[in-house]
Amino acid sequence: MKVSELGEFGLIDLLAQTIGRKKEDIPPQVILGIGDDTAAWREDSPIHLATTDTMVEGIHFDISKITWEELGWKSLAVNISDIAAMGGTSRYALVTLAIPGDTLVDNVLALYRGIKEIAGQFNVSIIGGDTVKSHLTIITVALYGTMENEAGELMTRSAALPGEIIGVTGYLGSSAAGLKMVSNDMPVKEEQASYLRKAHYRPQPRAMEGRQLFAAGVRCAIDISDGLIGDLTHVCKTSSVGAILKTDSLPVHPFVEANFPGEGTDFALSGGEDYELLFTAEENLFKRLRQQMSTPITAIGSITGNNPGKVTLVDKKGNSISRQKKGWDHFRPDNSSPSDPLP
Amino acid sequence: MKVSELGEFGLIDLLAQTIGRKKEDIPPQVILGIGDDTAAWREDSPIHLATTDTMVEGIHFDISKITWEELGWKSLAVNISDIAAMGGTSRYALVTLAIPGDTLVDNVLALYRGIKEIAGQFNVSIIGGDTVKSHLTIITVALYGTMENEAGELMTRSAALPGEIIGVTGYLGSSAAGLKMVSNDMPVKEEQASYLRKAHYRPQPRAMEGRQLFAAGVRCAIDISDGLIGDLTHVCKTSSVGAILKTDSLPVHPFVEANFPGEGTDFALSGGEDYELLFTAEENLFKRLRQQMSTPITAIGSITGNNPGKVTLVDKKGNSISRQKKGWDHFRPDNSSPSDPLP
Repeated sequence: MKVSELGEFGLIDLLAQTIGRKKEDIPPQVILGIGDDTAAWREDSPIHLATTDTMVEGIHFDISKITWEELGWKSLAVNISDIAAMGGTSRYALVTLAIPGDTLVDNVLALYRGIKEIAGQFNVSIIGGDTVKSHLTIITVALYGTMENEAGELMTRSAALPGEIIGVTGYLGSSAAGLKMVSNDMPVKEEQASYLRKAHYRPQPRAMEGRQLFAAGVRCAIDISDGLIGDLTHVCKTSSVGAILKTDSLPVHPFVEANFPGEGTDFALSGGEDYELLFTAEENLFKRLRQQMSTPITAIGSITGNNPGKVTLVDKKGNSISRQKKGWDHFRPDNSSPSDPLP
Repeated sequence: MKVSELGEFGLIDLLAQTIGRKKEDIPPQVILGIGDDTAAWREDSPIHLATTDTMVEGIHFDISKITWEELGWKSLAVNISDIAAMGGTSRYALVTLAIPGDTLVDNVLALYRGIKEIAGQFNVSIIGGDTVKSHLTIITVALYGTMENEAGELMTRSAALPGEIIGVTGYLGSSAAGLKMVSNDMPVKEEQASYLRKAHYRPQPRAMEGRQLFAAGVRCAIDISDGLIGDLTHVCKTSSVGAILKTDSLPVHPFVEANFPGEGTDFALSGGEDYELLFTAEENLFKRLRQQMSTPITAIGSITGNNPGKVTLVDKKGNSISRQKKGWDHFRPDNSSPSDPLP
């Protein structure tokens, strides 16, 4: 059945059922969920966070490559990642779905299953949204969260200090490798293919890690969505500092090395969409974090007072090397990031 | 200049300037506005509201008819209207703009001027959003608000009680008349044309009126976006009540009557997008409201215990009359509402 046959209100009813209108799915703080003019909830924590991210068919995803479940998962994951980068806790989401009338209802339900799965895993409640007809599929999530810090402290992009170590969680470049594998229909061993596919299509936001970093005292973080160089440049510009990035220190997963020999560093530097956290920390704090955290973290460089706004890449010997690519930029025609399937 | 020449980050910088990154534009409660992974603010009121509405080119607006300022205005207005329908206060907005790369930067700036104008008028701060490339223009606003009622009471769709009067603010059908005037390029006298155009393209959300209704004791309201019959049907279904609607009581503006003789009732019943408030109130409360409020309110019918979920139209003599149209539905192909410019 197509959504045009079901109608808007029929679809909303069905989605509300899928996403959970049942009492046990709705936390007691929620006064009103899906189905009125607004959602309403009670929240006594005084510090509030909000973010929104959109995925546009043909720009952010190729509907012939991504599954509908993955699309649902990823649309919420990228927002949870933003809240994680502040050190906050994701709580409530509004999901806006713009879809053509001939979209199969089964596909929309699969998309919502993907949303529901990640929402369950990260304790996020879907409390509202909008469903509209469109000529292409676009999914926009607005996510609301809180900080467990009454003073209003958080992790920002603008708090990096000279002398601090630049750290990242997990691996970098796996998402770009996964996209390339799928786009080029590459034959890859099953376990490795599964890892690479998930890295791009089903990223795991670092929600717990963000809160751990914040609680330990980290005050500068950003999630890696645009690509390491691009996102580190945001940090350098807003913090008015420079950065030295040791290209031989980048954590590249062995499955990326195995299938894309020699490409791992490039993927890590500018592939984007890894949704790992980049943070800065004074040396002793970094050492403590490495002991405390179960998720691996890697030191990939340091913050400097020189060259504010600039990221300097250095090789094994500490010699500066130059590169062109600086992450991706949605509107520039010279955009050639592997994350962007369009020319 | 096109946005593709400016690039995503150049555009974000320009928009942030337009929308106000200056200290005096940002209320002191805002800890972080545009420019980090999330926005952050302090809010001690414990009851929170959130809503989102999307406008899709070719579905909700015809870019050759609406001005970019109007598009910006309306995209926020429809959300403020939702918060108004709860009795709440609109506070912070996230604006997501999906636009083709060849969109003129001047047009995007005009859109943001429209947003800024209404945001200023209703004391809403734009604290974040997303800007992405798309094949068509789509603007999504997520709006956050609060209730000045610690007990968590609000105006819902589901609180209508048998015996209550059905009231509406302002006039109905003016928006549909304005759309028809513009779509058919009708010659209309200047003052009248200005009123009709504004009714559709620059609706004035009933924010103050929503709070007045709530403060006076009204507990059931909805904003009229889908059309009077459609929205009243939502109330009837969620409240498990019926409604009698007196078609000769509908408040139709004289400029609509003058330019669309005989069509006013139809526009009022199912035109949609008036963004007036529909509410229910016990008779004495309704009388008090009529004395207290400076905005005109009109009694257009009553709530009944019979025929739950149904709206019954009656004529001057109280005889039931039947109609087909029931507001508009985005996905059904038989949608023929005047609000929808697509077949």
